[in-house]
Amino acid sequence: MNSLDNCINYLLTGAQHTVFQYMKKNLNKFDITPIQYGVLGCIWEFDMHNPKEIAAHLGVENSTISGILERMENKGLIRRMIDSTDRRFIHIELTDLSKSLEVPVRTVVTEVDNNVLAQFSEDEINTLKDMLRRISAQDK
Amino acid sequence: MNSLDNCINYLLTGAQHTVFQYMKKNLNKFDITPIQYGVLGCIWEFDMHNPKEIAAHLGVENSTISGILERMENKGLIRRMIDSTDRRFIHIELTDLSKSLEVPVRTVVTEVDNNVLAQFSEDEINTLKDMLRRISAQDK
Repeated sequence: MNSLDNCINYLLTGAQHTVFQYMKKNLNKFDITPIQYGVLGCIWEFDMHNPKEIAAHLGVENSTISGILERMENKGLIRRMIDSTDRRFIHIELTDLSKSLEVPVRTVVTEVDNNVLAQFSEDEINTLKDMLRRISAQDK
Repeated sequence: MNSLDNCINYLLTGAQHTVFQYMKKNLNKFDITPIQYGVLGCIWEFDMHNPKEIAAHLGVENSTISGILERMENKGLIRRMIDSTDRRFIHIELTDLSKSLEVPVRTVVTEVDNNVLAQFSEDEINTLKDMLRRISAQDK
């Protein structure tokens, strides 16, 4: 039987925790959290403006995303535009603040990635990322 | 610059989420959560009885572990023995229920692992687990 310390859930949780904390510490200077970076990334890179689409991309529940967006609006990172004829339809827009953060935040995120993975070869990194994608993609 | 979808934090979070949900679903029949399995695993396999030691092994905060242990005590999974001369000293003990769960729970956890990793070769699995351990071990 598998040992706790060798179980994939335990190993993924440990690695995710280390990287998440490191990312959080590095994003702190911009006053944004890793999940807020995730939302901004969806807009910056993929031109997503719909909360449901962003939630699906980040793997968070629809009920969770509205709280995240509300905090981001309070910080001046986004504007939520509500359709006057259908209040369920919300369109997310960047602000001048979040537009100005794109280059510095993405630079820091790239540095975090490079630091976390500095001990591995290019081949190892590609293998790891490919395996993580294949694990995520499973319909379990 | 790195894309959001290629960032290690995003990929680890996605894979961890998939595996965690799958583990949770499979442990549900025993009425235990993945973190409760983690606590039981620390006692079953490593003979740990101290809440701080268990918290450190699982990478959770000391403030979080007491809530987890309280819920486990309410479910009859553990007993918390408090030293009458020093109330900070707590000793965790298994119950008949959690002793009887060891074999069936560990069997299910092993099956979950095998299912999640079924698409990979033995070499790929060893590489993945080794890389996840090395990422966790970094002092970031």
